[in-house]
Amino acid sequence: MEFDTIAAISTPMGEGAIAIVRLSGDDSIKIADQIFRSIGGKRLTEVPTHTIHYGHLIDPKNEQVIEEVMVSVMKGPKTFTKEDVVEINCHGGIVSVNRVLQHVLAYRARLAEPGEFTKRAFLNGRIDLSQAEAVMDLIRAKTDRAMNVALGQMEGRLSKLIRGLRQEILEILAHVEVNIDYPEYDDVEEMTHNMLLDKAIYVRDELKKLLQTSQQGKILREGLSTVIVGRPNVGKSSLLNSLVHENKAIVTDIPGTTRDVIEEYVNVRGVPLRLLDTAGIRETEDIVERIGVEKSRQVLKEADLILLVLNYGDQFTKEDENLFEAVKGMDVIVIVNKTDLPQQIDMERVKELATEHKIVTTSLLEDRGVDELEEAISSLFFAGSIETGDMTYLSNTRHIALIGQSLHTIEEAINGVEMGTPIDIVQIDVTRTWELLGEVIGDSVHESLIDQLFSQFCLGK
Amino acid sequence: MEFDTIAAISTPMGEGAIAIVRLSGDDSIKIADQIFRSIGGKRLTEVPTHTIHYGHLIDPKNEQVIEEVMVSVMKGPKTFTKEDVVEINCHGGIVSVNRVLQHVLAYRARLAEPGEFTKRAFLNGRIDLSQAEAVMDLIRAKTDRAMNVALGQMEGRLSKLIRGLRQEILEILAHVEVNIDYPEYDDVEEMTHNMLLDKAIYVRDELKKLLQTSQQGKILREGLSTVIVGRPNVGKSSLLNSLVHENKAIVTDIPGTTRDVIEEYVNVRGVPLRLLDTAGIRETEDIVERIGVEKSRQVLKEADLILLVLNYGDQFTKEDENLFEAVKGMDVIVIVNKTDLPQQIDMERVKELATEHKIVTTSLLEDRGVDELEEAISSLFFAGSIETGDMTYLSNTRHIALIGQSLHTIEEAINGVEMGTPIDIVQIDVTRTWELLGEVIGDSVHESLIDQLFSQFCLGK
Repeated sequence: MEFDTIAAISTPMGEGAIAIVRLSGDDSIKIADQIFRSIGGKRLTEVPTHTIHYGHLIDPKNEQVIEEVMVSVMKGPKTFTKEDVVEINCHGGIVSVNRVLQHVLAYRARLAEPGEFTKRAFLNGRIDLSQAEAVMDLIRAKTDRAMNVALGQMEGRLSKLIRGLRQEILEILAHVEVNIDYPEYDDVEEMTHNMLLDKAIYVRDELKKLLQTSQQGKILREGLSTVIVGRPNVGKSSLLNSLVHENKAIVTDIPGTTRDVIEEYVNVRGVPLRLLDTAGIRETEDIVERIGVEKSRQVLKEADLILLVLNYGDQFTKEDENLFEAVKGMDVIVIVNKTDLPQQIDMERVKELATEHKIVTTSLLEDRGVDELEEAISSLFFAGSIETGDMTYLSNTRHIALIGQSLHTIEEAINGVEMGTPIDIVQIDVTRTWELLGEVIGDSVHESLIDQLFSQFCLGK
Repeated sequence: MEFDTIAAISTPMGEGAIAIVRLSGDDSIKIADQIFRSIGGKRLTEVPTHTIHYGHLIDPKNEQVIEEVMVSVMKGPKTFTKEDVVEINCHGGIVSVNRVLQHVLAYRARLAEPGEFTKRAFLNGRIDLSQAEAVMDLIRAKTDRAMNVALGQMEGRLSKLIRGLRQEILEILAHVEVNIDYPEYDDVEEMTHNMLLDKAIYVRDELKKLLQTSQQGKILREGLSTVIVGRPNVGKSSLLNSLVHENKAIVTDIPGTTRDVIEEYVNVRGVPLRLLDTAGIRETEDIVERIGVEKSRQVLKEADLILLVLNYGDQFTKEDENLFEAVKGMDVIVIVNKTDLPQQIDMERVKELATEHKIVTTSLLEDRGVDELEEAISSLFFAGSIETGDMTYLSNTRHIALIGQSLHTIEEAINGVEMGTPIDIVQIDVTRTWELLGEVIGDSVHESLIDQLFSQFCLGK
């Protein structure tokens, strides 16, 4: 395919030693050559591929220096996009990298859309859709385990599995065709039925196995959305801090000082927790705090895990009881904090209410109980150890939905065969399964879906 | 010189398409070669310099893939540090880049200290000290003009000027030597005095000129520390927002809701303003807000520019009067905001108190008066236009201090000559001037100063 030449800042924004402006497309080397003066007088249009050149970015109108740069020239097809790619390494300042980008755009490169480099890698056939999606997962990975899942998918592990299953389905379909074309042979029909059933059951079982990895895969990819709830001053901010091992939320002794819902990822034994601190579930006259409380309620509904904090050194109150009511039926760990204080809480009552939940006692002030808490969190979702090294995890919501649907259609086909449904009806379900699996790797997807998928990427990728 | 091999993340932290882990030192290629498998089977130890190689970072113990990478090999001395340099480009995720760094460190690279790459460029003689300092200024530049100042200094513009002046001083010293060695020739003495005076006056005038650029240079480099003060609810946060053109500070109608001192840079016509919002100068019972108010008072003392905001739609109060008292003798722009409301303020009283200050009326709600304000800010510090393109600016506090001192010593020398002080006494001042100028470019500096200077750099540079 042939596209115009795009450019974008490919390193994260901020101050650093080095930043990169990347170009891809037929004119990328020509554009860079116009505005680059190598120290040795070399022209970028004449250098070998995969080489690096030191010099200055200049304004060709007056030869004024724009920036001191290193330019990498990589000619297609052995590049990320399969097109000619130029990377301009400049100083990692915000002004510097923007200046370089603006200059490149002034010389007829177009600003890339989010994900457009990866989209080209897909459209030019270097990677399939599930691999392209894994690129973004890899960048967003919050833990080592999540990165391994993404890396495996990017290297094509999921694609290979899906392609294998589609091959099986193709073989089913070929036999069905034979059966439809030569209905007069009874033994062909019987053979087809048996073969079809065997293969369909094999595909179904593989899809089931894959789908079973999806809960853990999704948690590894997206993190567990975790909410800390409790009355004011039970130690919610201390718990957040203790898990984050940093001092990001304000901790004071005045009830109600955590005013915003703070988002924070922490790595608890390989499980990424997206921690949402809350301003406490209670009414307040203060309008600023009320905004916080309203946000908290919304957040509670979407949480995967609730950390309900109680005060060991205080009476168990009606408010505490309301909290138990509010989190009924959810995954909850009850934390009885402040064991450094004399006991005031009625532990029997707590145990009564927390029959379904794990209870952990802590003194966050004295740093006691945090290990037990982390263990409780990890074992709630990952019974036994998880090994991401040699397993294919389903982690992407889109993939999970497609695999779920294809499991459904292949089961329909199996039912059909078992109930003696005419083979050309069964064929419809089998074909649909083949198509649905094709959508995972991008063999059969609408352009609008592709646009939408890549628009979620970060700029410069 | 010979050093061990260092490594660090050289791109800003955050999510992006690409991140770089950079290695420098004799073993950098060997270390990278151990943990890299190129797709074509090439060994990094055998590839030509300034080439790029695609492949995987692996764990050599079990050949497991750590990351998909592009590796750039650059052999010294034509590198940033003059040593062998390897850059590993990996995916720009936080987990990914840290994993690559950890892996490199596990194979006997040492984590670089902040600024250590640039320090090596200095110690290995590729750049002088003022050029090294400019590298960091360039990265931290907040506006185009500031970047041009840094770029000029990095390209050696200041160094060249300083070297020129030192050469002049060396010639003075050579003549003084002749004079001391052959005191019997009267005409030599007279000639020396005249020549010494001429050259010293030339050096003095050049230093004076340079020092005159320092106020503007410093503002371009560091930004104008700007404080917004005013009673609660006069529109301080709206002013901040209006200048930032974003919505970073919370704006509500409740007095006292801006709880922290928020730091924000904005580019006002090429002048970087470091905007410090304040919680308002007033006492409050609320402990959280009181912390903010105390901070504000400290900040006021260190400000370069005060934006004093008054409410057009409210009476001029005793509190407003106190504010005028508090900012006496400082660079102040008085902003009478909320002209969308019916006038309540006594403008005569405002003009009386603001005789030394510029007054601007605005309605931030209706977006009126902001242009006039920006013009007032720019013209307060940069009367007429500033051209950074062809001028050497003194911007670094260390340099300004050294140039100030050397101006002082050369003036002492001139006084000495004019008052007939013995030539060997004058020689002391001249020599001191030569040494002080040497410190600017790092020809004569203590190791501890060098360590301290580079420790202010960012990691990976």
